Amino acid sequence: MIKYAIPKKVKKEKTHINYSNRGMVFEEAINNTNEYYRNIDKALIHKKPTPIHIVKIDNSNNHARICDAYFEQPSTTDYNGIYKGHYIDFEAKETRNKTSFPLRNINEHQVKHLLKVQEMGGISFVLMHFILHDEIYLVDSSLVGKYYYSDKTKSIPYQVIKSKGHKVPYGYLAEIDYLKVVDQVYLNE
Amino acid sequence: MIKYAIPKKVKKEKTHINYSNRGMVFEEAINNTNEYYRNIDKALIHKKPTPIHIVKIDNSNNHARICDAYFEQPSTTDYNGIYKGHYIDFEAKETRNKTSFPLRNINEHQVKHLLKVQEMGGISFVLMHFILHDEIYLVDSSLVGKYYYSDKTKSIPYQVIKSKGHKVPYGYLAEIDYLKVVDQVYLNE
Repeated sequence: MIKYAIPKKVKKEKTHINYSNRGMVFEEAINNTNEYYRNIDKALIHKKPTPIHIVKIDNSNNHARICDAYFEQPSTTDYNGIYKGHYIDFEAKETRNKTSFPLRNINEHQVKHLLKVQEMGGISFVLMHFILHDEIYLVDSSLVGKYYYSDKTKSIPYQVIKSKGHKVPYGYLAEIDYLKVVDQVYLNE
Repeated sequence: MIKYAIPKKVKKEKTHINYSNRGMVFEEAINNTNEYYRNIDKALIHKKPTPIHIVKIDNSNNHARICDAYFEQPSTTDYNGIYKGHYIDFEAKETRNKTSFPLRNINEHQVKHLLKVQEMGGISFVLMHFILHDEIYLVDSSLVGKYYYSDKTKSIPYQVIKSKGHKVPYGYLAEIDYLKVVDQVYLNE
């Protein structure tokens, strides 16, 4: 009698990933999306490395090893690149808050940078992930700037984002298909 | 009798910095130039942080301190941003060689990236500093790609750079005024 192996739990097909409770997964999904965009020559968008101040390097072995360093505040956003000839620049943030999106995590350098990009003729926005709603919105920099500088609580109400932001669809290969929204919002396509 | 202090060597006016023998000064001069461009709202171009792989973080004190990490190979170039609505992307390198510019220091990812930027409608190039000639040239990515892939020695002769590259003028506030060359070469201005 042949002893059959007990089948392992069948992997769910990747159609829609639930991003709640998954920490770094949002960033990973954006990176995967950008990699997909690059692979199909749709856009050339990269995450910038995290800025670090190096204090001490150990050269005692063959390779330089950083043995003391600390994180620096970024002066620009995390993502930039080129799409259909346009300069694209954005930041990605998430919150567990259900009723509003806090802007505290975005520093003022970054907000100024986003606004400056638009003045220069580029496209800039913030991708906001409401973890508990499992919804992602593309929010134009002008709206971010408005609330950043005028709202006492430095946050944008969920209802405002729902009506003035643009929901980003989940995709299969482009997990977070934000360029679809960029087409509609900025390029009238 | 008044004793006069012996006058210290009068500082030369900053009109033209000689970059030979000065290591990191080339990168600093580009960073200063970009900062100047940003300050006068001419362009928004930043150096990307050096990519680092973090192995261990020490959280024992109040702040996260990186206690083990190493340098990663960059997959893109060092500088990018927006100028007059155009996406700009470049790498900066220097050599002590007098007769040719070695391309070994540029990795293949970076060359591919530069060429891809042009396909996408952006402007991309390498700023090459001949330390001993004290000359900087803007060299278009297509020329870099050509020699990278076809030249056995993976280097571009100085004479070729002199004739097909574009000499970057030194400036007072814009120390390495490469956007002046971008205007002429790419924007016909």
